[in-house]
Amino acid sequence: MRITVGDIETGPLDAITDVPGVRVGHVTLVEGDAVRTGVTAIVPHGGNVFRKKVPAAIEVANGFGKLVGYTQVRELGELETAILLTNTLAVWDAASALVDHTLALSGNEDVRSVNPVVGETNDGWLNDIRSRPLRREHFVRALEQASGGPVQQGAVGAGTGTVALGWKGGIGTASRKVGPHVVGVLVQTNFGGTLTLPGGETFAPSLAEDGSCMIVIATDAPLHARQLGRLARRSFAGMARAGASFSHGSGDYAIAFATADGSLPDDALTPYFEAVADATQEAIYNSLLHAETMRGHAGHVAKAWRRAAPRKR
Amino acid sequence: MRITVGDIETGPLDAITDVPGVRVGHVTLVEGDAVRTGVTAIVPHGGNVFRKKVPAAIEVANGFGKLVGYTQVRELGELETAILLTNTLAVWDAASALVDHTLALSGNEDVRSVNPVVGETNDGWLNDIRSRPLRREHFVRALEQASGGPVQQGAVGAGTGTVALGWKGGIGTASRKVGPHVVGVLVQTNFGGTLTLPGGETFAPSLAEDGSCMIVIATDAPLHARQLGRLARRSFAGMARAGASFSHGSGDYAIAFATADGSLPDDALTPYFEAVADATQEAIYNSLLHAETMRGHAGHVAKAWRRAAPRKR
Amino acid sequence: MRITVGDIETGPLDAITDVPGVRVGHVTLVEGDAVRTGVTAIVPHGGNVFRKKVPAAIEVANGFGKLVGYTQVRELGELETAILLTNTLAVWDAASALVDHTLALSGNEDVRSVNPVVGETNDGWLNDIRSRPLRREHFVRALEQASGGPVQQGAVGAGTGTVALGWKGGIGTASRKVGPHVVGVLVQTNFGGTLTLPGGETFAPSLAEDGSCMIVIATDAPLHARQLGRLARRSFAGMARAGASFSHGSGDYAIAFATADGSLPDDALTPYFEAVADATQEAIYNSLLHAETMRGHAGHVAKAWRRAAPRKR
Amino acid sequence: MRITVGDIETGPLDAITDVPGVRVGHVTLVEGDAVRTGVTAIVPHGGNVFRKKVPAAIEVANGFGKLVGYTQVRELGELETAILLTNTLAVWDAASALVDHTLALSGNEDVRSVNPVVGETNDGWLNDIRSRPLRREHFVRALEQASGGPVQQGAVGAGTGTVALGWKGGIGTASRKVGPHVVGVLVQTNFGGTLTLPGGETFAPSLAEDGSCMIVIATDAPLHARQLGRLARRSFAGMARAGASFSHGSGDYAIAFATADGSLPDDALTPYFEAVADATQEAIYNSLLHAETMRGHAGHVAKAWRRAAPRKR
Repeated sequence: MRITVGDIETGPLDAITDVPGVRVGHVTLVEGDAVRTGVTAIVPHGGNVFRKKVPAAIEVANGFGKLVGYTQVRELGELETAILLTNTLAVWDAASALVDHTLALSGNEDVRSVNPVVGETNDGWLNDIRSRPLRREHFVRALEQASGGPVQQGAVGAGTGTVALGWKGGIGTASRKVGPHVVGVLVQTNFGGTLTLPGGETFAPSLAEDGSCMIVIATDAPLHARQLGRLARRSFAGMARAGASFSHGSGDYAIAFATADGSLPDDALTPYFEAVADATQEAIYNSLLHAETMRGHAGHVAKAWRRAAPRKR
Repeated sequence: MRITVGDIETGPLDAITDVPGVRVGHVTLVEGDAVRTGVTAIVPHGGNVFRKKVPAAIEVANGFGKLVGYTQVRELGELETAILLTNTLAVWDAASALVDHTLALSGNEDVRSVNPVVGETNDGWLNDIRSRPLRREHFVRALEQASGGPVQQGAVGAGTGTVALGWKGGIGTASRKVGPHVVGVLVQTNFGGTLTLPGGETFAPSLAEDGSCMIVIATDAPLHARQLGRLARRSFAGMARAGASFSHGSGDYAIAFATADGSLPDDALTPYFEAVADATQEAIYNSLLHAETMRGHAGHVAKAWRRAAPRKR
Repeated sequence: MRITVGDIETGPLDAITDVPGVRVGHVTLVEGDAVRTGVTAIVPHGGNVFRKKVPAAIEVANGFGKLVGYTQVRELGELETAILLTNTLAVWDAASALVDHTLALSGNEDVRSVNPVVGETNDGWLNDIRSRPLRREHFVRALEQASGGPVQQGAVGAGTGTVALGWKGGIGTASRKVGPHVVGVLVQTNFGGTLTLPGGETFAPSLAEDGSCMIVIATDAPLHARQLGRLARRSFAGMARAGASFSHGSGDYAIAFATADGSLPDDALTPYFEAVADATQEAIYNSLLHAETMRGHAGHVAKAWRRAAPRKR
Repeated sequence: MRITVGDIETGPLDAITDVPGVRVGHVTLVEGDAVRTGVTAIVPHGGNVFRKKVPAAIEVANGFGKLVGYTQVRELGELETAILLTNTLAVWDAASALVDHTLALSGNEDVRSVNPVVGETNDGWLNDIRSRPLRREHFVRALEQASGGPVQQGAVGAGTGTVALGWKGGIGTASRKVGPHVVGVLVQTNFGGTLTLPGGETFAPSLAEDGSCMIVIATDAPLHARQLGRLARRSFAGMARAGASFSHGSGDYAIAFATADGSLPDDALTPYFEAVADATQEAIYNSLLHAETMRGHAGHVAKAWRRAAPRKR
């Protein structure tokens, strides 16, 4: 099942992993009645990322979030680690684990400074977030298990305990082809608003929680950091169209990176901008479509949208 | 005729002038076959704005534009003149006229520094923009004629020659009530994309021109500059929902100001954020609904959307 | 011993703790031949900071650093934890400990989101930074031991293993009185350049290491976040005058917070701006003046400047 | 006469025109008792700049100024016109003239959008700035007379009526060689503070006026926009060392551009950073050294520093 957004052709997997070399890994932590969380790793390429950094930018729609690594990416325009996504109170432990992992890589024996990039949303409605159950091993495993190919979506990894648009949210992904290139998007959806489909159909939230959205964008188009910033900003249009309310508490960030060398002129970017907006919107739908109803912390239940609302109204 | 956006109550005029004290003035310049341009003034209050500055912020979705006055508003968080909107190649003459006007006001005899704020979109498809026909008198007249009450919309003032979403664009306005306050929005629409109604209906562009969007937001809620920046950013969600493509060439800016003293906590802002997104989206529709088909420079014709597509599909 | 900078009167302690309520705590970790590091806590007031947040801003001269907490401070203009300073590879563990500490405070039982602010410089020349020896207990102890009164300076806390201007650096502090208010500064010096005294005397570096500088500014003047940003930016002038080279690798940040409610007009700020520049410059000198020669990791030695160069040339 | 700053070798002219292709033009307007103003053009190369744009960045130490062109340079990272410097109330007329000039260039017949960059300081103490005496012809003449070779300094062009550090300010320039490249700086000095020489000697201001500083940086090093931003920020260290007080009212901006294609890694930039700080500091001294005592508006007199204080104290 898929909700069509726009008319740009998708990549073969309709996933961020359509960008050659990009790998995704999930660790899902579901324990007892109250632990519903996890971690998702997005790895730019198969080599040592610290030694082969990639151009990158981070754009902030609402900075009410704990994302780690912002200022160095803005200053130097590059990513020197994988990206981890997790829950709000786990970002620093995730960052610390990512640094350990980087220091331990062959070729990094003399490294004394690393800028890990970790994003988050707050899964504290379904997850006993104050118990801080994620440990170093979970973050490392997400990195080590990352692979290409189809990406598991829904209530997995960093999306395990999230709620979006009043339904069970999670991880979603989508991609678009632009000329010889691919733009891939992966989202961790946990934000409020009213789910709105491309045809205009809307679905009232089944619960009133809101939170944030993390958007990761990969491309093999040869874009440098300033251009990646321009690209990243367009992803928020996809959020808007899917129904985000952009509330006070929603810390919304987009991280974009490119895997290719070379350059494109800015006036060639419009098709990439449209692709990223469409792919973000579709990835949000995908995160909901693949999520199952989940019961968690304090008996809270987030319903799967596709079950609760099986037919279009 | 009106297209309903969201379910928040509008102000009595459904216009930026629902914010007490805010006044709008248009000068429309249509001459011969090729001049199709103008200027729109938005005046924060009836006093000497330089002597009674108002808190303000300017947010930039795409900085590919010529807006005048940005850095001082960012540094000091206030507006010390009215806002003028006009065409791309007229912003500096508009700013110069606005400064003359400010210097000449009673009480400003010792003023030696003024920060005029002027926004623009490029009406060069319908208007012979290179002829630069707007003169000091036009800018001053827009300021002096500004008044409260209903706002003329469509192909007037700074919207005279604009094209939006492939149809004749122009000036639009809308407002929303939030508790005891009003949020009012005025737009100058000139951007590309696919017109999309709240019910999901879309309208193919009748021509392929794109450009930019200027958004002016007024409120009598007691918001200070940082909060006005947060408010202003939400207006771009309204653009996204109306179908903006956020192309490379679309220089999109939102200017927000408040007319009240006092303060609100940030966690009270979500309703204001939703109001500004809805009002912006509706104001965009209003700009199209009120615009008549126009023929201009080089024989170019921009069709009125409501005539060309009278019935909903 | 003290090097006079400017002619503004200092506070009674010439320390950041001259700002009423502000407390400082150090934990110094010197173990074996190679561990030379630590943590310094700056606590805005004696209450629960999460429940009584303080207006704050962070300014970035060079974002090549790992500071944690930037985007939320920029978005919301406030600090909701103490500030920790430590070494580059310890910031995330410090942030995690600061969050644990915050979650455990009485009154915070329902808190599910905390924005810790942690700054760093890289002490990897004297300290075996890759061994990552700082543990949760060290960070918590710095917070718990924080007190008002005189501040220990030199090679203590987060300044234990730092090197500045080619000499042994460390923690320094200074303050200035501005009307009824105090501006206090605390620095963690680890940056390159040529030590330059107010009289113009310069001292060649004894070693070529460079790094970064963290600057923390406190005031009881009633400044809000935008104004604190303006204040913070002036601290970099103090760095410049002390001889900083602002090299590529020097990640330089200034964090400013205010402990008072109320407001001041922007045109009253110039004396505060001059105060912060002078206090920063003096605090840098103080960090050097109080530092003893230290031998550490890999047999590296950083000489105390006041010993090596006892007389003014 | 020259005040040595640092030990980096200067270019042959010690001027911004040491960067191959860069040209400077002044128009000085001294009329009657009260008009003391002018315009200075800095032209990146001898071709059509709109057709051969150059990478550029603008950094803002204090945005309390009227600089025109900021947001587009930030968005696209390039300059498409020459830079004009003038007085505060003339920037918009200067921008308008620069646009006329650009539209009229051969090859620009179809241009409908131009982003002029114009900076300013407020010469209203010596100049009857409210009379707004500069006209289109003055701005165009500065552009057309721009040439390579030695640059006239002191009270000329945009520096005609400025006051810096309590003495007669003006235009100053300097350059530094970095490997095979040159970094050139031109300043328009009009800011407050206490003149401080590299040896530490200070000179009390002869009058209390303050204002702003405009800094223009050119290089033939192959730097792209993000790197030029990093370079530009270092110029403020030169201002700090020369004695700037960075007051509330001092709108200080640095505009940097590069004339070469290609690229350098960021970790090669430190020598360029040091060069720009030194060259800015020296250029400030040069602006004072070359300025003659001037009497102007309202009988105000700004004394030449080198005359008033001929011998070093």
